[in-house]
Amino acid sequence: MNVLAKIYVTLKGSVLDPQGAAVTHALHALRYEAVQDVRIGKYMEVTLEADTRERADELVRGMCDQLLTNPVIEKYTFELVEAR
Amino acid sequence: MNVLAKIYVTLKGSVLDPQGAAVTHALHALRYEAVQDVRIGKYMEVTLEADTRERADELVRGMCDQLLTNPVIEKYTFELVEAR
Repeated sequence: MNVLAKIYVTLKGSVLDPQGAAVTHALHALRYEAVQDVRIGKYMEVTLEADTRERADELVRGMCDQLLTNPVIEKYTFELVEAR
Repeated sequence: MNVLAKIYVTLKGSVLDPQGAAVTHALHALRYEAVQDVRIGKYMEVTLEADTRERADELVRGMCDQLLTNPVIEKYTFELVEAR
Protein backbone atom coordinates (compact mmCIF):
# COMPACT_ATOMS: atom_id res chain seq x y z
CA MET A 1 0.00 0.00 0.00
CA ASN A 2 0.93 3.60 -0.53
CA VAL A 3 1.47 5.54 2.68
CA LEU A 4 1.89 9.26 3.26
CA ALA A 5 3.89 9.99 6.41
CA LYS A 6 3.42 13.47 7.84
CA ILE A 7 6.43 14.18 10.00
CA TYR A 8 6.65 17.08 12.44
CA VAL A 9 10.06 18.00 13.78
CA THR A 10 10.48 20.50 16.60
CA LEU A 11 13.38 21.66 18.70
CA LYS A 12 13.48 20.21 22.19
CA GLY A 13 12.05 22.62 24.74
CA SER A 14 15.38 23.43 26.34
CA VAL A 15 17.06 24.35 23.03
CA LEU A 16 17.31 28.04 22.13
CA ASP A 17 15.53 28.96 18.90
CA PRO A 18 17.15 32.12 17.46
CA GLN A 19 15.10 31.86 14.26
CA GLY A 20 11.91 31.81 16.32
CA ALA A 21 13.13 34.79 18.33
CA ALA A 22 13.80 36.71 15.09
CA VAL A 23 10.30 35.94 13.81
CA THR A 24 8.76 37.01 17.14
CA HIS A 25 10.65 40.29 16.83
CA ALA A 26 9.52 40.80 13.22
CA LEU A 27 5.88 40.10 14.18
CA HIS A 28 6.06 42.67 16.97
CA ALA A 29 7.45 45.19 14.47
CA LEU A 30 4.40 44.47 12.30
CA ARG A 31 2.12 45.31 15.26
CA TYR A 32 1.33 41.73 16.22
CA GLU A 33 2.05 42.54 19.85
CA ALA A 34 -0.22 39.69 20.96
CA VAL A 35 2.48 37.20 19.97
CA GLN A 36 4.35 35.81 22.95
CA ASP A 37 6.55 33.14 21.45
CA VAL A 38 7.43 31.50 18.15
CA ARG A 39 9.17 28.16 17.68
CA ILE A 40 10.23 27.08 14.21
CA GLY A 41 10.29 23.44 13.18
CA LYS A 42 10.13 21.35 10.06
CA TYR A 43 7.30 19.54 8.38
CA MET A 44 8.00 16.72 5.95
CA GLU A 45 5.74 14.61 3.79
CA VAL A 46 7.24 11.28 2.82
CA THR A 47 5.38 9.03 0.39
CA LEU A 48 6.42 5.40 0.60
CA GLU A 49 5.35 1.90 -0.32
CA ALA A 50 4.88 -0.60 2.52
CA ASP A 51 3.11 -3.92 2.94
CA THR A 52 1.61 -3.09 6.30
CA ARG A 53 1.07 -0.11 8.51
CA GLU A 54 3.48 -1.57 11.07
CA ARG A 55 6.19 -1.81 8.43
CA ALA A 56 5.57 1.80 7.36
CA ASP A 57 5.79 2.89 10.99
CA GLU A 58 9.10 1.08 11.41
CA LEU A 59 10.55 2.56 8.19
CA VAL A 60 9.56 6.13 9.07
CA ARG A 61 10.98 5.81 12.58
CA GLY A 62 14.24 4.54 11.08
CA MET A 63 14.47 7.43 8.60
CA CYS A 64 13.79 10.00 11.31
CA ASP A 65 16.47 8.56 13.57
CA GLN A 66 19.06 8.11 10.83
CA LEU A 67 18.64 11.12 8.59
CA LEU A 68 15.62 13.35 8.96
CA THR A 69 16.10 14.65 12.47
CA ASN A 70 18.92 15.43 14.85
CA PRO A 71 18.02 13.52 18.02
CA VAL A 72 20.39 15.62 20.10
CA ILE A 73 18.35 18.81 19.76
CA GLU A 74 15.12 17.80 18.00
CA LYS A 75 12.12 15.61 18.66
CA TYR A 76 9.59 14.34 16.16
CA THR A 77 6.13 12.95 15.82
CA PHE A 78 4.49 11.56 12.74
CA GLU A 79 1.19 10.26 11.47
CA LEU A 80 0.55 7.81 8.66
CA VAL A 81 -2.17 8.32 6.10
CA GLU A 82 -3.06 5.69 3.52
CA ALA A 83 -2.59 7.52 0.26
CA ARG A 84 -4.15 6.88 -3.10
CA MET B 1 -6.97 33.56 26.48
CA ASN B 2 -3.68 31.97 25.54
CA VAL B 3 -3.70 30.29 22.15
CA LEU B 4 -1.15 28.02 20.53
CA ALA B 5 -1.32 28.17 16.74
CA LYS B 6 0.21 25.20 14.94
CA ILE B 7 1.02 26.35 11.42
CA TYR B 8 1.94 23.98 8.59
CA VAL B 9 3.51 25.50 5.49
CA THR B 10 4.03 23.46 2.33
CA LEU B 11 5.15 24.23 -1.17
CA LYS B 12 2.35 24.37 -3.70
CA GLY B 13 2.08 21.14 -5.65
CA SER B 14 3.39 22.60 -8.89
CA VAL B 15 6.55 24.02 -7.28
CA LEU B 16 9.76 22.01 -7.60
CA ASP B 17 11.28 20.96 -4.27
CA PRO B 18 15.04 20.41 -4.74
CA GLN B 19 15.54 19.92 -0.98
CA GLY B 20 12.93 17.16 -1.01
CA ALA B 21 14.61 15.56 -4.03
CA ALA B 22 17.96 15.61 -2.21
CA VAL B 23 16.42 13.94 0.84
CA THR B 24 14.76 11.30 -1.36
CA HIS B 25 18.15 10.59 -2.91
CA ALA B 26 19.84 10.35 0.49
CA LEU B 27 17.14 7.97 1.79
CA HIS B 28 17.61 5.73 -1.25
CA ALA B 29 21.35 5.70 -0.55
CA LEU B 30 20.53 4.53 2.99
CA ARG B 31 18.53 1.61 1.49
CA TYR B 32 15.11 3.14 2.05
CA GLU B 33 14.13 2.22 -1.51
CA ALA B 34 10.46 2.17 -0.52
CA VAL B 35 10.46 5.98 -0.46
CA GLN B 36 8.80 7.48 -3.53
CA ASP B 37 8.71 11.18 -2.78
CA VAL B 38 9.65 13.70 -0.09
CA ARG B 39 8.33 17.24 0.23
CA ILE B 40 9.84 19.58 2.79
CA GLY B 41 7.81 22.25 4.50
CA LYS B 42 7.87 24.31 7.64
CA TYR B 43 6.11 23.89 10.94
CA MET B 44 5.68 26.83 13.29
CA GLU B 45 4.23 27.14 16.76
CA VAL B 46 3.04 30.63 17.62
CA THR B 47 1.82 31.37 21.13
CA LEU B 48 -0.39 34.42 21.34
CA GLU B 49 -2.94 36.17 23.51
CA ALA B 50 -6.41 36.76 22.05
CA ASP B 51 -9.84 37.55 23.48
CA THR B 52 -11.70 35.10 21.28
CA ARG B 53 -10.96 32.21 19.00
CA GLU B 54 -12.18 34.25 16.02
CA ARG B 55 -9.69 37.00 16.84
CA ALA B 56 -6.87 34.47 17.14
CA ASP B 57 -7.86 33.01 13.77
CA GLU B 58 -7.80 36.44 12.18
CA LEU B 59 -4.41 37.32 13.70
CA VAL B 60 -2.76 34.07 12.60
CA ARG B 61 -4.15 34.41 9.07
CA GLY B 62 -2.74 37.94 8.92
CA MET B 63 0.71 36.86 10.12
CA CYS B 64 0.84 34.01 7.61
CA ASP B 65 -0.11 36.29 4.73
CA GLN B 66 2.20 39.12 5.75
CA LEU B 67 5.32 37.42 7.05
CA LEU B 68 5.30 33.72 7.75
CA THR B 69 4.64 32.33 4.27
CA ASN B 70 5.30 33.24 0.68
CA PRO B 71 1.86 33.04 -0.95
CA VAL B 72 3.40 32.84 -4.42
CA ILE B 73 4.90 29.39 -3.88
CA GLU B 74 3.56 28.20 -0.53
CA LYS B 75 0.25 27.30 1.02
CA TYR B 76 -0.55 26.95 4.69
CA THR B 77 -3.01 25.47 7.11
CA PHE B 78 -3.19 25.97 10.85
CA GLU B 79 -5.00 24.79 13.91
CA LEU B 80 -5.62 26.63 17.15
CA VAL B 81 -5.22 25.00 20.54
CA GLU B 82 -6.18 26.71 23.76
CA ALA B 83 -2.97 26.71 25.73
CA ARG B 84 -2.43 26.85 29.43
